[in-house]
Amino acid sequence: LNEFELIARYFQSSQYSDDVLLGVGDDAAVVTVPDGFKLVTSVDTIVEGVHFPNNSAAADIAYRALAVNLSDMAAMGAIPKWFTLSLCIPTIDETWMNGFAKSLNALASQFKVQLIGGDTVKGPLNISVQIMGVVEQDHWLTRSGAQPDDLIVVSGKPGEAAGGLRLLMNAHSSLHDSHHEQQLIERFLRPVPRIALGRELRSIAHAAMDMSDGLLTDLKKLCFASNCGARLQLDDLPKSSLLAAMFDPEQCEQLILNGGDDYELLFTIPSASLQQLISISNAIGVRCTLIGVITAGDQVECMRGNEQVTVADSGYDHFK
Amino acid sequence: LNEFELIARYFQSSQYSDDVLLGVGDDAAVVTVPDGFKLVTSVDTIVEGVHFPNNSAAADIAYRALAVNLSDMAAMGAIPKWFTLSLCIPTIDETWMNGFAKSLNALASQFKVQLIGGDTVKGPLNISVQIMGVVEQDHWLTRSGAQPDDLIVVSGKPGEAAGGLRLLMNAHSSLHDSHHEQQLIERFLRPVPRIALGRELRSIAHAAMDMSDGLLTDLKKLCFASNCGARLQLDDLPKSSLLAAMFDPEQCEQLILNGGDDYELLFTIPSASLQQLISISNAIGVRCTLIGVITAGDQVECMRGNEQVTVADSGYDHFK
Repeated sequence: LNEFELIARYFQSSQYSDDVLLGVGDDAAVVTVPDGFKLVTSVDTIVEGVHFPNNSAAADIAYRALAVNLSDMAAMGAIPKWFTLSLCIPTIDETWMNGFAKSLNALASQFKVQLIGGDTVKGPLNISVQIMGVVEQDHWLTRSGAQPDDLIVVSGKPGEAAGGLRLLMNAHSSLHDSHHEQQLIERFLRPVPRIALGRELRSIAHAAMDMSDGLLTDLKKLCFASNCGARLQLDDLPKSSLLAAMFDPEQCEQLILNGGDDYELLFTIPSASLQQLISISNAIGVRCTLIGVITAGDQVECMRGNEQVTVADSGYDHFK
Repeated sequence: LNEFELIARYFQSSQYSDDVLLGVGDDAAVVTVPDGFKLVTSVDTIVEGVHFPNNSAAADIAYRALAVNLSDMAAMGAIPKWFTLSLCIPTIDETWMNGFAKSLNALASQFKVQLIGGDTVKGPLNISVQIMGVVEQDHWLTRSGAQPDDLIVVSGKPGEAAGGLRLLMNAHSSLHDSHHEQQLIERFLRPVPRIALGRELRSIAHAAMDMSDGLLTDLKKLCFASNCGARLQLDDLPKSSLLAAMFDPEQCEQLILNGGDDYELLFTIPSASLQQLISISNAIGVRCTLIGVITAGDQVECMRGNEQVTVADSGYDHFK
């Protein structure tokens, strides 16, 4: 099997949609970006021992590789359409490849994204996915548009993924019997890209991003990009009964503020759009929580009640 | 420095062209594919010890990473426009990063392609570039369009890159004094993407691909994709005085047939277009050589004079 046949054998779609004029198998793929739409693209690479635990299941690795890229499309308000896969693996193990491909193909199918190119090379495990999507002319989301007095909102329950990872890493056995435990681990292993929410936010959000490094770190990035500050209400952070069942209150807050891997959306809206956000949240069934306001400053202040408190920001840095 | 700042610091363009609506620094980039054009995209990943020798200079690695992707655009007849970079490096070495970035930025500037996204992660050296280009509606090149009686043509001097690599690997000292030697090594280290040729070939070529794995292997791929065979005239293979100066005739032929890394174009044209090809070749200053004809069969026959001979096909396979 050469690299070409590998991609064809495991990943090639038998049936492309009409927008794919040339798929896997030539020197490049050719696709149509519809009139009135812009191309949105991003790359995310995941490496064993850095982005996922050593000896993770192939299915989990594949899911993560594509999901984190889909999440970037969600953060832009884009419709994900196509992706390429660069798979660097030490050796070809049929079972591993089947597990990887099945999981990748299932997630791709769920979000209607098509693999249009790929590369397999021999080397230390490294999976790079490049995602391409489309978005209506002048209607994409950025992280740089937040304005003072905007409300700061997060989707879902940040911290649960990090809680799940902690349980996964600290487990003395590979069995996770508790239902809570299993659910938290699932949050880490199967983050749900918030595509539908991102699409809806185009009409109301001033700024948006997906959270991968931790709420506090990511909020600071959003503020930096928007040239503003924020006042975060710690008491308003979304409570997680799953986290509460497994960790003490202080740990919970730490996980919520500094746990990464959530791939929830962090965004700001003008207060006038609050009612509309509630309608959106109800319509698509994704919980959204107000956690603070954007300020004219350049600091992210954490408030407990009316009192400002200092919170360690231990956001993720690959090279720290 | 987080991964974001790394990309911004070393690679972010200060000035994007108008087609880049949002560049490096957000969750994704946003670009415009012009009306009447299709998006062409491809990914190529290079790994130390597989695609380039261990301890290669950062500048050489960067050049290769982008050049092989530009070559895919050439093979499609596309205009390269944008790329993303996923850089997996064991550690941040300022000198290495500067050498890498300077070389990458220089080649990008030469071919007017813009870096619009990236990712840096910590891990074993692995560089993945995703290239995006545009091509006129219905006017791209594929490897599947060859027809019986088409003339088979190669650009440049295949084999020289492989000759250069052999010299590089066998060198007893790091000094390559001979001018011939230096030139061959340069052919390996600095393959020139045949963008201008690819663009011109859109009007005459039935099939095209770029050669990375060796002429014979790549010709077989083209024939397989086109559902046809080929008759290759060994006596017509382009002669290289550089190779002849360093290797015996048998070695030269082996390098030409089975040496990879050339990134020259292999293409087929109807014989009626020969005069036009000569004009194109002269106009853009790229040598093109007729090396055989496409047949209705399914084999690639190698002819020496009127006699069919057997030639070992030792084309490159990462997982062999």
